[in-house]
Amino acid sequence: MIHARLLSGCLLLLASVSASAWEYTLVAPDKPVQNWSISSDRLGLRDGLAFAVGVHRLSGGRQEGSVLIEIDTGAMQLTVVATRGMNVLRAQAGTLRLGWDSPVREVVNPAFVNLESRNGLGWLEGFNELVARAGFEWVGHPGMDRGQLLTLHGRASYLPASQVVLTIDEQPPHRISLKGVLHEEAFKQANFRIDTELVTHAGATGFTLHDRLTNQGAHTAEYQVLYHSNFGPPLLGEGSRFAAPVREVSPFDARARQELGEWQAYRAPTPGYGETVYNLYPWGDDQGRSLAVLHDHSAHQGVALAFNVRELPVFTLWKHTDAKAQGYVTGLEPGTSFSYNRSQQRALGLVPRIEAGGTRDFTLDYRLLATAAEVRQALEQVEGIRHGRPTKMREAPLAQEP
Amino acid sequence: MIHARLLSGCLLLLASVSASAWEYTLVAPDKPVQNWSISSDRLGLRDGLAFAVGVHRLSGGRQEGSVLIEIDTGAMQLTVVATRGMNVLRAQAGTLRLGWDSPVREVVNPAFVNLESRNGLGWLEGFNELVARAGFEWVGHPGMDRGQLLTLHGRASYLPASQVVLTIDEQPPHRISLKGVLHEEAFKQANFRIDTELVTHAGATGFTLHDRLTNQGAHTAEYQVLYHSNFGPPLLGEGSRFAAPVREVSPFDARARQELGEWQAYRAPTPGYGETVYNLYPWGDDQGRSLAVLHDHSAHQGVALAFNVRELPVFTLWKHTDAKAQGYVTGLEPGTSFSYNRSQQRALGLVPRIEAGGTRDFTLDYRLLATAAEVRQALEQVEGIRHGRPTKMREAPLAQEP
Amino acid sequence: MIHARLLSGCLLLLASVSASAWEYTLVAPDKPVQNWSISSDRLGLRDGLAFAVGVHRLSGGRQEGSVLIEIDTGAMQLTVVATRGMNVLRAQAGTLRLGWDSPVREVVNPAFVNLESRNGLGWLEGFNELVARAGFEWVGHPGMDRGQLLTLHGRASYLPASQVVLTIDEQPPHRISLKGVLHEEAFKQANFRIDTELVTHAGATGFTLHDRLTNQGAHTAEYQVLYHSNFGPPLLGEGSRFAAPVREVSPFDARARQELGEWQAYRAPTPGYGETVYNLYPWGDDQGRSLAVLHDHSAHQGVALAFNVRELPVFTLWKHTDAKAQGYVTGLEPGTSFSYNRSQQRALGLVPRIEAGGTRDFTLDYRLLATAAEVRQALEQVEGIRHGRPTKMREAPLAQEP
Repeated sequence: MIHARLLSGCLLLLASVSASAWEYTLVAPDKPVQNWSISSDRLGLRDGLAFAVGVHRLSGGRQEGSVLIEIDTGAMQLTVVATRGMNVLRAQAGTLRLGWDSPVREVVNPAFVNLESRNGLGWLEGFNELVARAGFEWVGHPGMDRGQLLTLHGRASYLPASQVVLTIDEQPPHRISLKGVLHEEAFKQANFRIDTELVTHAGATGFTLHDRLTNQGAHTAEYQVLYHSNFGPPLLGEGSRFAAPVREVSPFDARARQELGEWQAYRAPTPGYGETVYNLYPWGDDQGRSLAVLHDHSAHQGVALAFNVRELPVFTLWKHTDAKAQGYVTGLEPGTSFSYNRSQQRALGLVPRIEAGGTRDFTLDYRLLATAAEVRQALEQVEGIRHGRPTKMREAPLAQEP
Repeated sequence: MIHARLLSGCLLLLASVSASAWEYTLVAPDKPVQNWSISSDRLGLRDGLAFAVGVHRLSGGRQEGSVLIEIDTGAMQLTVVATRGMNVLRAQAGTLRLGWDSPVREVVNPAFVNLESRNGLGWLEGFNELVARAGFEWVGHPGMDRGQLLTLHGRASYLPASQVVLTIDEQPPHRISLKGVLHEEAFKQANFRIDTELVTHAGATGFTLHDRLTNQGAHTAEYQVLYHSNFGPPLLGEGSRFAAPVREVSPFDARARQELGEWQAYRAPTPGYGETVYNLYPWGDDQGRSLAVLHDHSAHQGVALAFNVRELPVFTLWKHTDAKAQGYVTGLEPGTSFSYNRSQQRALGLVPRIEAGGTRDFTLDYRLLATAAEVRQALEQVEGIRHGRPTKMREAPLAQEP
Repeated sequence: MIHARLLSGCLLLLASVSASAWEYTLVAPDKPVQNWSISSDRLGLRDGLAFAVGVHRLSGGRQEGSVLIEIDTGAMQLTVVATRGMNVLRAQAGTLRLGWDSPVREVVNPAFVNLESRNGLGWLEGFNELVARAGFEWVGHPGMDRGQLLTLHGRASYLPASQVVLTIDEQPPHRISLKGVLHEEAFKQANFRIDTELVTHAGATGFTLHDRLTNQGAHTAEYQVLYHSNFGPPLLGEGSRFAAPVREVSPFDARARQELGEWQAYRAPTPGYGETVYNLYPWGDDQGRSLAVLHDHSAHQGVALAFNVRELPVFTLWKHTDAKAQGYVTGLEPGTSFSYNRSQQRALGLVPRIEAGGTRDFTLDYRLLATAAEVRQALEQVEGIRHGRPTKMREAPLAQEP
């Protein structure tokens, strides 16, 4: 049972100071969330590395009760939504924004959303993050699987986190870790715990996500996960390009097949474009490490997303280059699975299983590419991983949407 | 993104005093809702016009977190539910109540309701207002339309308002305006913003609603709206009458057809009555202005509801004169549409469209008729608008319920 | 309308001291829930009977906003969840725990659960209580009845209580009463009020539940109720036994039929066991009083559950002796009805009706059996009620699951 027994209603943040790090419990059963902040200044640091972390509770509309955790590394401002699966709402480094402008303007509290609504598309009522977790029971398009309606992309983004803990290293570069626990539990149905962690440090212009899925149940269970990582302007624009070392690319459906030849290129905002989706099998290096890059038309700025194909073997590239008002955005989505309904992915071998008591780790690194040199270097990394291996273009979609 | 950045957690109400009006932000992303009140006294007014406005947050049951805004004009007490689409819960002027006694006693927080439950009748779990907004993606009975379950009367009443702002004019009669914003948004599904406003003034025994719908999307979209305005005793009782200038009246269904001849008359509470519904096409004057009147059996008191047929071309008259314990009530419902499922209203031309970036305005005025003279005057207004034009009685319902 | 008018935002607990009892309103429309406690010490009692009651609001995860009320009788600690139908989460007397270890670790706020999800099994996302109320519109397995999806075990456990009032008698043994009101209301659909009460006293190692269902509507309505009373270790274990005076026992389904011969015995945690369920018709004494007993393998400790067959004529025995990680638990479930879908229970005469304005009372007493003598005494009580009457073993299930 996750609750505290009767004790004095201590409203102060619990800070435990160790020899090497400060630790703050930001969310816990016996601690009401309150606006709060800490900074290098207030910690008395004088090493020239300025950073700050704040907790902010939102009010009004479907934002009521949403909890934001804002990390300012000094070089980048990151916003994590504790109440939405520890998703990363956005990141900003100077004038460069990672994230996008969704038609969904509110940071929606899961209490106000019915995932089953809109034929299983309720997830879209709150979709506006830079990184939205899909999983962990299932991912993919809504539809029936074994007699049950699976809703779009599972429940992870609609699980508010418990036990959120911030840790800041005393020593430069002051590693900043933000952990949050998700419970995906239902008697006889699901028994997952997900320990999420976001790591960055003072001065950083990037961040790492590390999730650990634990099957707390007594039986082997299916699972799926996909990291829906979304970028709009300024990184996305006409002439922007996607690059990754890819073993095979295929169109998600007939619509995407028409533009298979230009799968790495992006259009300007195009009213009525809708979306095209490509299914990629990335190459990894001898350790499984892979890298995806998105950069603007001039290759002067971009973002690099590192992941490991042993953890996340497939990759969905989602191109929603419709009109700006519709949400002009591309999704870079490493996962265990593509975005078909789970019922279609078993035949593709993309519904992995986790044994009783087992754990699975997923690590993703998001790094800003702020200069042409950094973009070039990242593209060279991509080619290094590719190591001359070819990309197979497959014309036929891997599955048929029902 | 609707959120404030890290800033001091100012819990005080933000009051901006201009030369001509006081403005108070009651609900905003960075301002937790708290009980609060203001009054003419506290504003130092000495002009003999006493008024007050208060904010009240409810606790317990499915009321937890509900936010009421109570406006006392000195002559009428109005209650608005910020967390339920800025609906008007009730109004009271002396012994005369506008509103009704619903079997739903709580002011239900939308977080606790699944609109899809009860075969799409979840809306009824919170239905107890004087004015409940239906819309804006759709209105009407639950049912499938183009493959999707449309739930009863849409989502507007289940959208908590953000950015609620109160403005009070310094000059008599101290116009009081209460604005609230509704976001009806879902990626690729809906992109509506509704700016609601309720206007009254010190000494008033009525109020005006003014809503502006904006299509924030890049595509033309369908919309529907209906203002479900509900009255029980003392205005409703045996012998109460409804009057409006009507071009055509027809029964909603076979049940209503049986009593078409008495469509303007009301029965006493009648156990087992259920409901009868009539579809009206009102006449408007040369500006489109129309008026509906409900008055008691002696025509000594009543309510007048003014609207414009250019904005709201049709009108549903709902007679739920069942036993008191079931909710003895009549609904006067100006709208763009009747209460059939949307799938049945396209053929009737009652599913209007709004272009990308377009706006639509809806204005309704609710006025208490406190004396026989006021009732008589309102009925004369009705006749003035009718201008001798006939009412066609149509025997057959306009649509068949599936 | 359940709300307070504008008044000063008094945050203090309202205590009304009478000649004979202290009364505290813990949850009410105009009183935000806050952590709070009272004790015999603070009440200045010096009679050697120490007790305490506390209110505790949880934060984080799907526990956000959950309200626990913890009663320490001095001999037993009871936890009631005000936000989940006044369910009893657990009880602890020294080392003996009543309750179980559910895979659901959080005390889930109903705002985060869609009962219709998982094909009507959403109830299982929060199921972890010692006593979970099922009802009052319906109980039983999810499925269609008269065109509507009835979700597992109804809504009672997902109705947050309003008007929670604690009363403590001044005189020994200081009777402690905790009342909470549930509104199960939906316009034209349901109109139930349930007045729940839990009673215990200083020094007690048990508690009594007394619920009163009122049909507030104008029509006779169907209802069902079942008290899902759940026990894991240490009372449940290999060799634990169930005893009750039973007129007829039958297997719920084909699975249970295989083990009908050992319906009173329990297995050790058995991975893959799933569950077996038995339908019992208990005998009562000449007042209708009946008793069910669960005790451990050595008959050294147990629990006795007293109820009345005139109120609760049937009894479900649920044996979920699967692996511990799946929730090793048995349910003792007195009710008006078995756990079939309501559509299957009408033919069994197990869908009672309640007239307009009518009330129905349900009283259950949970008593710890802390010694072999107490267990023996309770088993003798069972035999006393049985009074030599036989138990009919029925091989065929009473209904077929669809």
